[in-house]
Amino acid sequence: MGVVVSLDGDRKKPSLDALTSLVEDDLKAVNEMIVQRMHSPVEMIPQLASHLIAAGGKRLRPMLTLASAKMCGYQGGRRHVALAACVEFIHTATLLHDDVVDESDLRRGLASANAVFGNKASVLVGDFLFSRSFELMVEDGSLEVLGILSHASSVIAEGEVLQLITTNDTETGETAYLDVIRAKTAQLFAAACRIGAVVAARPRVEEEALETYGMNLGITFQLIDDVLDYSAEQAELGKTVGDDFSEGKITLPVILAFRRGDEEERRFWRRTLEKLEQEDGDLERAIELMVRHEALADTVERARHYGAIARDSLGIFADGPVKGAFDDLIDFCIERAH
Amino acid sequence: MGVVVSLDGDRKKPSLDALTSLVEDDLKAVNEMIVQRMHSPVEMIPQLASHLIAAGGKRLRPMLTLASAKMCGYQGGRRHVALAACVEFIHTATLLHDDVVDESDLRRGLASANAVFGNKASVLVGDFLFSRSFELMVEDGSLEVLGILSHASSVIAEGEVLQLITTNDTETGETAYLDVIRAKTAQLFAAACRIGAVVAARPRVEEEALETYGMNLGITFQLIDDVLDYSAEQAELGKTVGDDFSEGKITLPVILAFRRGDEEERRFWRRTLEKLEQEDGDLERAIELMVRHEALADTVERARHYGAIARDSLGIFADGPVKGAFDDLIDFCIERAH
Repeated sequence: MGVVVSLDGDRKKPSLDALTSLVEDDLKAVNEMIVQRMHSPVEMIPQLASHLIAAGGKRLRPMLTLASAKMCGYQGGRRHVALAACVEFIHTATLLHDDVVDESDLRRGLASANAVFGNKASVLVGDFLFSRSFELMVEDGSLEVLGILSHASSVIAEGEVLQLITTNDTETGETAYLDVIRAKTAQLFAAACRIGAVVAARPRVEEEALETYGMNLGITFQLIDDVLDYSAEQAELGKTVGDDFSEGKITLPVILAFRRGDEEERRFWRRTLEKLEQEDGDLERAIELMVRHEALADTVERARHYGAIARDSLGIFADGPVKGAFDDLIDFCIERAH
Repeated sequence: MGVVVSLDGDRKKPSLDALTSLVEDDLKAVNEMIVQRMHSPVEMIPQLASHLIAAGGKRLRPMLTLASAKMCGYQGGRRHVALAACVEFIHTATLLHDDVVDESDLRRGLASANAVFGNKASVLVGDFLFSRSFELMVEDGSLEVLGILSHASSVIAEGEVLQLITTNDTETGETAYLDVIRAKTAQLFAAACRIGAVVAARPRVEEEALETYGMNLGITFQLIDDVLDYSAEQAELGKTVGDDFSEGKITLPVILAFRRGDEEERRFWRRTLEKLEQEDGDLERAIELMVRHEALADTVERARHYGAIARDSLGIFADGPVKGAFDDLIDFCIERAH
């Protein structure tokens, strides 16, 4: 990738630290609530759920709810904690369902929850977490929040189906791809932010500003995720790369490389991603083509564009530590690519 | 089975006709709403959903909501129609997820939605219908209904996981089996009935009476369903039997035959249902053992017990055509076994 970030004293590597320390206590309460509310007399449910939830993860989405509530001056209550747990439950349910292996897919390596517990258990525990999330929302009692998260959930499902359709189709264009990631990823980021404003009972303009922030942050996040899956540096760090490639997922780096490539290159993409006929060295060739056509660097540039929109959406809020942390988060999402 | 129903002039075969004609117009409205609200710009969603929904089915659960509202004197509104559609969406989502094929299960015949669209699409469209159902409930605006159906949904998921655990385990007892069918089947029958009383704003005692009716009707229904899967008469009528057997599901007819059998018979059950080592003639042998030990007839007797509880729960309502139709429905569920 062409963009190099200097790591000298003037500019430190962006991190999640500011955000994490701002919401630290609340996040601890969210984690406790998650463990408490994923309980079921059917022991396999907390076992399987904790396989994913307790395994950690950044808890990015619940942190968005907590930080949004904080930026909107929410005080005195625990609603933001319960609703942040709802957001994480929905996210975990979609992860469990996203990992379901299709009949035609059995050749590739199984995701771990599937491998340990089986496809069907993963689906059913996802359903449980999803339902439990709605039970928690009902306890909270806000029809507005229920409306936001039920709508987000159906949009996520639409996005996942859309992704299923575009997988293995190298004709997929950038617009269709953006529709997919808006729905499958960014919608929950947006909802997570918005409900922070809702619990604080802030004017609609603040709800919408935070929703815009979340939506564009989510797009930024997913674009960089898609870059990282082809990153040679990530491979050197021992992280997994090439999952999207082996599944034939059509992400923006592929779309740009395909469109900028010649006919011989397009035959390569069709063979590897449509027919899934892959051999040793194909992933390296894919990365090489992406670098040659600046497909990775330009995907990062696209991410910067959405990051800029996210940043500007915060303009209506007063400067302060929370706004600063939201700003840092955009940089963090982008700089992961370096 | 030992019980024979006389079909002479005094006693006609119980049917769904009374119930169907009572709610006919409302059910038409439910069907229209289902088609309208399962719409999505992602065409695969209505395609796959209608594969299941438009294929028909008895619409038993939404009819329970409509008839309960009617028995409680609900008038003038359309809430019962929208909520009956919610119930059918949840039921369809659970069917789609129930049909997900586990890795280890690929040998057996695929359910049709899976076969046509794949495992993953079935899961995601189930998620969509589930989320859409909650969107519809939010439009309705009753937190009480949202609480009833979100709770029912998580109980259903628990029941399905429990069933997964008891499958292939011939040690499963009658109590554990009843826990499974209460959760996976009867809970939604109960919720469907209860929300009919909720929209009519009836006293809690009527809500609870209808919930009890639905719960016990659901148990009755499932017990008879489990009998039918081993019914020689059904096989003669060209209906599918033996699905539970080939999957190694432990249902009450199996539990009774296993407990009443000798050691040689138990070895048969362990081989066929635990190890799933099945050969030609095994299903016939299973049915023969069930008949010999009166396992089928006694499962029907158990069903009658729950049917009697359902019938008595209606005692607080005035006699009339709706109560009569609810009564007939119990008979219909039981007499399917003959």
